[in-house]
Amino acid sequence: MKSTSSIAPPSLSRAHVVIVGMGLMGASLGYDLRGHCRRVTGVVRREEAVAPTLARGCADEVTTDVAAAVAQADLVVLATPVRTILRQIDTLGPLMKPGAVLLDMGSTKTEICHQMQKLPAHVQAIGGHPMCGKEQAGLDAAEPGLYRGCIFVLCPLPRTTAETVALAQALIAHIQARPLFLDPEQHDRLVAAISHLPYLVASGLVAHVMDVAREDERVWQVAASGFRDASRVAASDTTMMLDILMTNRAAVLAALDGFLDQMQRLRRALEANEESFLQTRLAEIAKKRRDWQKNASTH
Amino acid sequence: MKSTSSIAPPSLSRAHVVIVGMGLMGASLGYDLRGHCRRVTGVVRREEAVAPTLARGCADEVTTDVAAAVAQADLVVLATPVRTILRQIDTLGPLMKPGAVLLDMGSTKTEICHQMQKLPAHVQAIGGHPMCGKEQAGLDAAEPGLYRGCIFVLCPLPRTTAETVALAQALIAHIQARPLFLDPEQHDRLVAAISHLPYLVASGLVAHVMDVAREDERVWQVAASGFRDASRVAASDTTMMLDILMTNRAAVLAALDGFLDQMQRLRRALEANEESFLQTRLAEIAKKRRDWQKNASTH
Repeated sequence: MKSTSSIAPPSLSRAHVVIVGMGLMGASLGYDLRGHCRRVTGVVRREEAVAPTLARGCADEVTTDVAAAVAQADLVVLATPVRTILRQIDTLGPLMKPGAVLLDMGSTKTEICHQMQKLPAHVQAIGGHPMCGKEQAGLDAAEPGLYRGCIFVLCPLPRTTAETVALAQALIAHIQARPLFLDPEQHDRLVAAISHLPYLVASGLVAHVMDVAREDERVWQVAASGFRDASRVAASDTTMMLDILMTNRAAVLAALDGFLDQMQRLRRALEANEESFLQTRLAEIAKKRRDWQKNASTH
Repeated sequence: MKSTSSIAPPSLSRAHVVIVGMGLMGASLGYDLRGHCRRVTGVVRREEAVAPTLARGCADEVTTDVAAAVAQADLVVLATPVRTILRQIDTLGPLMKPGAVLLDMGSTKTEICHQMQKLPAHVQAIGGHPMCGKEQAGLDAAEPGLYRGCIFVLCPLPRTTAETVALAQALIAHIQARPLFLDPEQHDRLVAAISHLPYLVASGLVAHVMDVAREDERVWQVAASGFRDASRVAASDTTMMLDILMTNRAAVLAALDGFLDQMQRLRRALEANEESFLQTRLAEIAKKRRDWQKNASTH
């Protein structure tokens, strides 16, 4: 990353922040930033969303006029689905003022950072992905403190200045998240394993139970907390998840293959009655899962 | 099931109930039954467990002398892992007094009900499986009200009398669970899909992340709530789960194959870029998952 820039962005407290997309992520960020920046503008798509979003108090002003808002911003945060972000980098980037910073919060990073590279030279950009989420999406689910304790991945471009990285880090520090620098391809490989694969697997579990239910509807009745947790992410917003899958196909396919290979090993051992192998392997996996939970919850 | 028996069991309120195994399930049952039955005896394996279990207040008395306890019982509830239950049916059943009832709470039912069929004619028996659980196991995790709202599967044997079924139903009503009658084979097929398969799948997910971590340890850092929920059951007690898998192999293998088939379909569609198929299919699955959750939480 570059060390200096002719026009540096202002500090976070002096910045006019424009958040494009006031769903779970955007509105939660607005709650945390409002009162701590010069101004927080929320951009919504539909005119009917302006009043209710403003009423929540997650922005100083709410507008549908994205072009006008972005032109005034010191920091633009794109909080929309991945393929919307890809389009918005193209359409909104050139409208930004010199030295302004574009940060996104999309769930995949390779295509987004690639697109950011093409921005006009006067616009600074950095890829971001906060690793938090909730069962519900949308404005109603947004809340102050959503990002507290979460990992917030940052992917600076080769052209990203140190001042831009510092601004993103100040934002992350303010919302009490924890920054993690990853290159975009590595980010996408890692989240394929811990997010995109679990989504497809949960969907496969539900699909199998739907098959079983065709024979016996009572299968839904006996499903309890184990199934509930294992299948929860299958209820995620399909449009958002499709954007993720289609912009991370290679890494998701590789994760699927790694997972299916593990499943075949467990299947063969069960079929062959290899109880001592299963005992050792499943105990090792259970221990790893418990250790992870223990470490994760101490952060 | 038979309609009458020469020696009928007493009503639940007059029954001396002996619970064998004071872990999560046994001790929780003890909390709910104590004071509502003539006497609740808890049986533990180790002498050191007697005092702490008694101190919890989940039984009127606690003992390691399972033979003496069972000989006095009107109702014996086996709350141990499946293969321990299989042995206990053999060793404890013959010690029970005429007309006494044996109920188990094991997670698979075919082998258990088969074993129950071999009990001496003077002992009544019925298979049971409450569909509830918690992340933690053991006495410390036990609590009053654990069974409230849960499905409690009952598998009467051909030789089970109506009075025995009525006693089991009275117990289920008292703990505010909901009875569901299933034959043992069907129970095992259904729970393979919604419990045993999700366990193996969660284990496969963790195993894949362990593979990824060998290349980049940071994968554990980026893992968030989606991975946490999808993989939670992988942390289950391995001994308990092995008992389940080994006594339900055929149904688990069939569930695995159905699931792997679903995963291959999703994989092929992603590889072939069939976005509209994925959109339709994943939206249908997401809707089913949301509908199930809605219905499940209204019970």
